[in-house]
Amino acid sequence: MTFSAVDIITTKREGAPLSDEQITWVLDAYQRGDVAEEQMSALLMAIFFRGMLGGELRTWTDRMIESGEALDLRSLSRPSVDKHSTGGVGDKISLILAPLVASCGAAVPQLSGRGLGHTGGTLDKLESIPGWRAALSNDEIREQLETVGAVICAAGAGLAPVDRRLYALRDVTGTVESIPLISSSIMSKKIAEGTRALVLDVKVGRGAFIKTIERARELASTMVDLGEGHGVATVAQLTAMDQPLGRAVGNALEVNESVDVLRGGGPSDVRELTLALARVMLDLVGIEAHPEAMLDDGSAYGVFRSMISAQGGDPDAVLTPAPLRHVVTADASGFVSSVDALVVGVAAWRLGAGRARKEDPVSAGAGVMCLVREGDHVAVGEPLFELYADDDQHLSSGREAIRGAVIIGDERPLPAPILLEKITK
Amino acid sequence: MTFSAVDIITTKREGAPLSDEQITWVLDAYQRGDVAEEQMSALLMAIFFRGMLGGELRTWTDRMIESGEALDLRSLSRPSVDKHSTGGVGDKISLILAPLVASCGAAVPQLSGRGLGHTGGTLDKLESIPGWRAALSNDEIREQLETVGAVICAAGAGLAPVDRRLYALRDVTGTVESIPLISSSIMSKKIAEGTRALVLDVKVGRGAFIKTIERARELASTMVDLGEGHGVATVAQLTAMDQPLGRAVGNALEVNESVDVLRGGGPSDVRELTLALARVMLDLVGIEAHPEAMLDDGSAYGVFRSMISAQGGDPDAVLTPAPLRHVVTADASGFVSSVDALVVGVAAWRLGAGRARKEDPVSAGAGVMCLVREGDHVAVGEPLFELYADDDQHLSSGREAIRGAVIIGDERPLPAPILLEKITK
Repeated sequence: MTFSAVDIITTKREGAPLSDEQITWVLDAYQRGDVAEEQMSALLMAIFFRGMLGGELRTWTDRMIESGEALDLRSLSRPSVDKHSTGGVGDKISLILAPLVASCGAAVPQLSGRGLGHTGGTLDKLESIPGWRAALSNDEIREQLETVGAVICAAGAGLAPVDRRLYALRDVTGTVESIPLISSSIMSKKIAEGTRALVLDVKVGRGAFIKTIERARELASTMVDLGEGHGVATVAQLTAMDQPLGRAVGNALEVNESVDVLRGGGPSDVRELTLALARVMLDLVGIEAHPEAMLDDGSAYGVFRSMISAQGGDPDAVLTPAPLRHVVTADASGFVSSVDALVVGVAAWRLGAGRARKEDPVSAGAGVMCLVREGDHVAVGEPLFELYADDDQHLSSGREAIRGAVIIGDERPLPAPILLEKITK
Repeated sequence: MTFSAVDIITTKREGAPLSDEQITWVLDAYQRGDVAEEQMSALLMAIFFRGMLGGELRTWTDRMIESGEALDLRSLSRPSVDKHSTGGVGDKISLILAPLVASCGAAVPQLSGRGLGHTGGTLDKLESIPGWRAALSNDEIREQLETVGAVICAAGAGLAPVDRRLYALRDVTGTVESIPLISSSIMSKKIAEGTRALVLDVKVGRGAFIKTIERARELASTMVDLGEGHGVATVAQLTAMDQPLGRAVGNALEVNESVDVLRGGGPSDVRELTLALARVMLDLVGIEAHPEAMLDDGSAYGVFRSMISAQGGDPDAVLTPAPLRHVVTADASGFVSSVDALVVGVAAWRLGAGRARKEDPVSAGAGVMCLVREGDHVAVGEPLFELYADDDQHLSSGREAIRGAVIIGDERPLPAPILLEKITK
């Protein structure tokens, strides 16, 4: 059946739901080039304003999955379970969580992306390890899941290829921030990846792209519905992203901090969140285990080392910060009432840890070490941040960007929890 | 100053007004190719949903005018005044009005477009006259305005060229029906055309693209504000477009009916509306005249003949309807309670009088003659419409399309006025 792109755009623009046939036609026609980029971007903007009903979104996501190949993990001897985070500053949880959950007996197929803007990408972080490679074939992924239990690698071009084009289009047309479009983008890739279960870490706060708990709930329940509708057991954990997670923000800096946590140490917030997500994941696939013990006895770290080695990386490599260093000190005494994750994330980006365009390179060693957390007491002149950069230009633009990241007050703020609500079907 | 297209799209998407600098940048960048079609279509869709404030729209329209050349009519010895209609079925008013107002002493520079969809285009109608050509140079336009007083021709490519691209883009991206975008498109061309005064015939009803009086008021006052803001004395007349205007719908059929009116005869609704608009136009430029007399004494027809001759047309050519004819008859007796202008317009289009794509040809002789009007009494078997087409395929698809155009009831409907409200600054 043939439809007209203009009729479909107009239907959505006027607020009516699209039929399954209309959605199938428009995505197929876009894939083969019969619907132009300017027509698709107008449709995406209309979806931004009008939203999609549950049934529409399910069909839209189905067609994105069917636009490419799907990974078949059914032959694995371990149950598969994955995690997706909507992105935060200092969010290195995947690096710890994948080997930790694998050390408990699950297979974790973490197909990831690169960072853009103020939040870092998991692949960028791992690429600071010499020799490590992000690109694996489907057979290599399955093999590593069977032998090591965890794989973090690049999502191949064959997985939901229409999503790749839509994502690039949304990026240049101001249509990123739409709950149905975000949900279908994330979930199409996770469903195509073949995982049996999925935990979603939906970040909310200053440093996240979702700023309010209401919107986080809406995104979380939309994604949970999509996952469950496709037979993937899905739970969403809403977590706070007002201040950075842990102390390290930047690629190699975050790998080092992840190793600390994998060896039983590291910042308590990182450990707490990792363990909470691990428990949800293990629960989803019915594995009874004690993930704390796996961190403390080195089992998780052992899997991490195997995972790095399997992808060509040297687990014994010493990752050093970038050579230029600047310490930001407190200009007042008192309690740290806030550390703005967005400001810190932008500063790390300016220092060289992130990229503005997807073809830009990133610096391995650049970034920010946060020496204080909300509620800490500081005196004038005490260090707040260490900034690392490869050259003076990046250092000075990071120094400029970090200004105002910390607010110091007279009263100790109430402690704010990281774990907020859990959303299930 | 440099802006980012994504920031501008996002600003409008979130409902904030665009600054003059942002509007200037985005239209300039679009014109030179630095803002892509898919970015502009997303912005247009955001404008559809969010609208534009008066100041934004004035700047947007200014930039469209400045994107090309403007016609300078200040050297003419006659005051210039033009009319624009938002488009209706059987709307041949321009063909009569331009020579009529010129016969009263004004210069009427009517730069027009072609028809698309169910409403016909003025140029298409005149092209049914052998030899008549729509393309004139700016010098030819000025010369003809001085000597004949009226010119109906194609708007040159140099006039508001960004509007030409935006219009084509809106046509394929479902962003036509936006009051600020419609207003800026119409007004940028009319202002660039150099007219001193302008009357807008804003059609409202079943056969118009504006269906409600509220929306017609909004469009009219937006355009009046734009015109007055640019120093063009502008008045809008809201007129009913529920049933076709006059009896003839189709290119040559409408030229013949226009000649009837120009010779003092023709359908009373066409005469009434033409005279009402003529009075507003003459009033705007301060000419005291009696347009009825100019119709009745042949003066207006004389100017029409000169106007056609000046553009190579033969004013004595006999324009015949297309050779195949079918008469639609009443299947019930009673009063005609409605003649649906949209249905009749679509039928004329299917018969060959209109086009679906701008490169399609149109038939000169195809169309519909409406033999009844609302309020008429008919008996079973009496003729309602004559359909004309060049071949059987068009005839049968017109016969199919005309079904249900007339509703016959037991009671005589109340007479509905054509002239609704007048909107001034």
